[in-house]
Amino acid sequence: MKLRHVVESQQFTVPRLMELFSRTEEMKKIVARGGTRDYENKIMASLFYKPSTRTRFSFESAMFRLGGKNLATEQAYEFSSEIRGERLEDTIRIIADYCDVIVLRHHEEGGAKRAASISPVPIINAGDGAGGQHPTQALLDLYTIYNECHALDGLSVAFIGALDKGRTVRSLAYLLSKFERVKLYFISPDELQIKTDILEHLDENGVSYNLANSTDGIINKVDVVYQTRIDRERLKDRNLDLTNYNIDSSVLQKMKYNSIIMHPLPRSVEIDTDVDHDRRAAYFRQSRNGLYVRMALLTMLFEENDEPTLFDGYKK
Amino acid sequence: MKLRHVVESQQFTVPRLMELFSRTEEMKKIVARGGTRDYENKIMASLFYKPSTRTRFSFESAMFRLGGKNLATEQAYEFSSEIRGERLEDTIRIIADYCDVIVLRHHEEGGAKRAASISPVPIINAGDGAGGQHPTQALLDLYTIYNECHALDGLSVAFIGALDKGRTVRSLAYLLSKFERVKLYFISPDELQIKTDILEHLDENGVSYNLANSTDGIINKVDVVYQTRIDRERLKDRNLDLTNYNIDSSVLQKMKYNSIIMHPLPRSVEIDTDVDHDRRAAYFRQSRNGLYVRMALLTMLFEENDEPTLFDGYKK
Amino acid sequence: MKLRHVVESQQFTVPRLMELFSRTEEMKKIVARGGTRDYENKIMASLFYKPSTRTRFSFESAMFRLGGKNLATEQAYEFSSEIRGERLEDTIRIIADYCDVIVLRHHEEGGAKRAASISPVPIINAGDGAGGQHPTQALLDLYTIYNECHALDGLSVAFIGALDKGRTVRSLAYLLSKFERVKLYFISPDELQIKTDILEHLDENGVSYNLANSTDGIINKVDVVYQTRIDRERLKDRNLDLTNYNIDSSVLQKMKYNSIIMHPLPRSVEIDTDVDHDRRAAYFRQSRNGLYVRMALLTMLFEENDEPTLFDGYKK
Repeated sequence: MKLRHVVESQQFTVPRLMELFSRTEEMKKIVARGGTRDYENKIMASLFYKPSTRTRFSFESAMFRLGGKNLATEQAYEFSSEIRGERLEDTIRIIADYCDVIVLRHHEEGGAKRAASISPVPIINAGDGAGGQHPTQALLDLYTIYNECHALDGLSVAFIGALDKGRTVRSLAYLLSKFERVKLYFISPDELQIKTDILEHLDENGVSYNLANSTDGIINKVDVVYQTRIDRERLKDRNLDLTNYNIDSSVLQKMKYNSIIMHPLPRSVEIDTDVDHDRRAAYFRQSRNGLYVRMALLTMLFEENDEPTLFDGYKK
Repeated sequence: MKLRHVVESQQFTVPRLMELFSRTEEMKKIVARGGTRDYENKIMASLFYKPSTRTRFSFESAMFRLGGKNLATEQAYEFSSEIRGERLEDTIRIIADYCDVIVLRHHEEGGAKRAASISPVPIINAGDGAGGQHPTQALLDLYTIYNECHALDGLSVAFIGALDKGRTVRSLAYLLSKFERVKLYFISPDELQIKTDILEHLDENGVSYNLANSTDGIINKVDVVYQTRIDRERLKDRNLDLTNYNIDSSVLQKMKYNSIIMHPLPRSVEIDTDVDHDRRAAYFRQSRNGLYVRMALLTMLFEENDEPTLFDGYKK
Repeated sequence: MKLRHVVESQQFTVPRLMELFSRTEEMKKIVARGGTRDYENKIMASLFYKPSTRTRFSFESAMFRLGGKNLATEQAYEFSSEIRGERLEDTIRIIADYCDVIVLRHHEEGGAKRAASISPVPIINAGDGAGGQHPTQALLDLYTIYNECHALDGLSVAFIGALDKGRTVRSLAYLLSKFERVKLYFISPDELQIKTDILEHLDENGVSYNLANSTDGIINKVDVVYQTRIDRERLKDRNLDLTNYNIDSSVLQKMKYNSIIMHPLPRSVEIDTDVDHDRRAAYFRQSRNGLYVRMALLTMLFEENDEPTLFDGYKK
């Protein structure tokens, strides 16, 4: 089946993921050569209802390295609320005439799916609502594990932090459930633990997992530590002390020599900067992979949806 | 006379309009082929004192399809008010050194004219003040009528909505007055009717028109229904009920089979989404025409003002 | 020594300045020819923590004329404060993966130096804090003097206005102190005079200077009048009358026939628009030189740091 839109991480089958990762390797070579001109006729529109400079830059840089062009706004929400009552569907239909692909960050869960249901050009979900998805983040996370650990089957992964609101953790857990003999650990104070819908999904797929309040006895045996942001405001409200969940050089000493530490970035205090110099600190490499994975996704979308769409005589 | 700036819709003669429309057809072919590289050395600066993402994207996409490059700000007003006392004329002189054409959305009526009076590069007015002009909207509106109805002479057009603040209606009425045997209807509550300066202009040009409070007896005989935004806040203030002025499937049934419905978009409640599926709903085609008409205008400006302007030895 | 970053004006030796100016002349020719494609693989990221549309456009236009591409944000501060505790160093490491050079406007003095200390791609300081530096402004100022007066040794320069907060004046004074027999005048009410650290630097370098409260007896003998913005709010607070420090046609009459008037722009009331038409009004030419000088700097940075940096196998 052709890749029409990128809306949620679950939509990718294992063979499609492997195809994506193989293409990601090609993209590294293209960037090393200084980029390509192959997609110079393509225009990407970044339609962000809330600003996210890093994510936007990552997509736009991917487009530039492919030779393409970028339209961008981070003010879509402000604009949209100003003109009361405008429907997302109308906006997408209008913007689609100006571009060949739309990267959408919407504030409502399900926004990307609504957009995809009517858009004549491919939609890439760059985050929809706090409880929604951010599939390209999950794909670059999975690629990073694959690239660093040379495998996905049989891996053990510990997620640490405030997991109840962790969009990235949710999406990655979905993806990991597609692989064999995966073992997941969710380490968080009870108040901030991962929500049960994810656990039900893991149960259905026969994925082994554990919930814990501490890294003790876990940190020393996992292949991947996936650290997430700790919102200090929330902790103060609840009188929680999350220093137990931080990673510093003492935690590092307990980790396996060939394990890796990941983080969706930006980080606050939850990873000590001392850790940066250790080979196992993979988070900056992870961030860079976002460029290559997004390039790979864009080329798949362009190739699999390559038909003239703008001329009046055509269907669009 | 060469096209130096695009400041107001009246400046276009009928032969110039026909030239623009013929060029617009060419642009459709260029976009269908994926764009051109012919203008790759050209830089457009979008200088928006107030954000208007759709209009900006339409211009920028036009520039990209021509191979050109875009500088853009939607924060010009904030910036300008911060540095008290700066003159628009100075800003234009500075920005003109960085580009080959300036698209200006200014908050003051007459802003575009002031800019054009001193700018060394062409100025395109993308809206100046509530009572001002938005000529590229009027040109794409006129092109849409021409393209859909295959004629401009002899047409009857009904404008519906809050017409007193309708910049697009004003500009289009000026343009339509250049054609023969045109008949215009302005349908609005008395409180929101079109202003008398437009009616005086129509009188001077011998254009036939009617004012009405209802679509009854009109909607069934016009070729074009030009629906405009209905600002619900204003209506509440005045205890007006504008549902009489909305278009839904029951209104649609009364319309001629070969008539069209236009709207400058974005819409709120004034056109029911059920109407979208009818062939007569021309508003999304109208929006797409904005791309082609703006491309055509840009190529006219570049060709008719093509002289080196930036090097010290030259006059600029 | 190769040019790695552009952090402060002092870092440039006289031979390096002359090389930059010679390259600036070449850039004028490139722009007159419509630009080049030589740097089409290069991406510049403009990371502005506070908006500055003119400076950003000048850099982005420079990049476009060289054939390159632009990523840009003017909202970095808002974004950064939202995610409490993020370190500039992390941001730079992430953004550096998306581009080949970073133009940074940071709100803290020393921000550019911190960024340069860890960045794998060149950093250009586009202003850091009120008391910090804005080296490309100083370089374009110096180039303008060189280009207009055909010399830098032996020149006399009067700085006028609120000099205590004048980042541009500070940076230019540093640069001028590198040349022979330069004579500087600082003309300002005592309350707004230039700070003593600059005067100490001039003393150490044997540069002759004078402080004055009025242009009398000075304006008629200097080669360059460098006028700066007068913030009327500050004056009202202190009951100062800065009309004595304005330039109008009566002041112009006293100036040497081959002298020039400069201003970093935008101006408020401190230069009368009547003065614009005089050949000695150099400020719009000065602004335009910003384009050429920034192009020249970018080409120096690209050529002197040209190594593949993005591929995994490499060091970055």
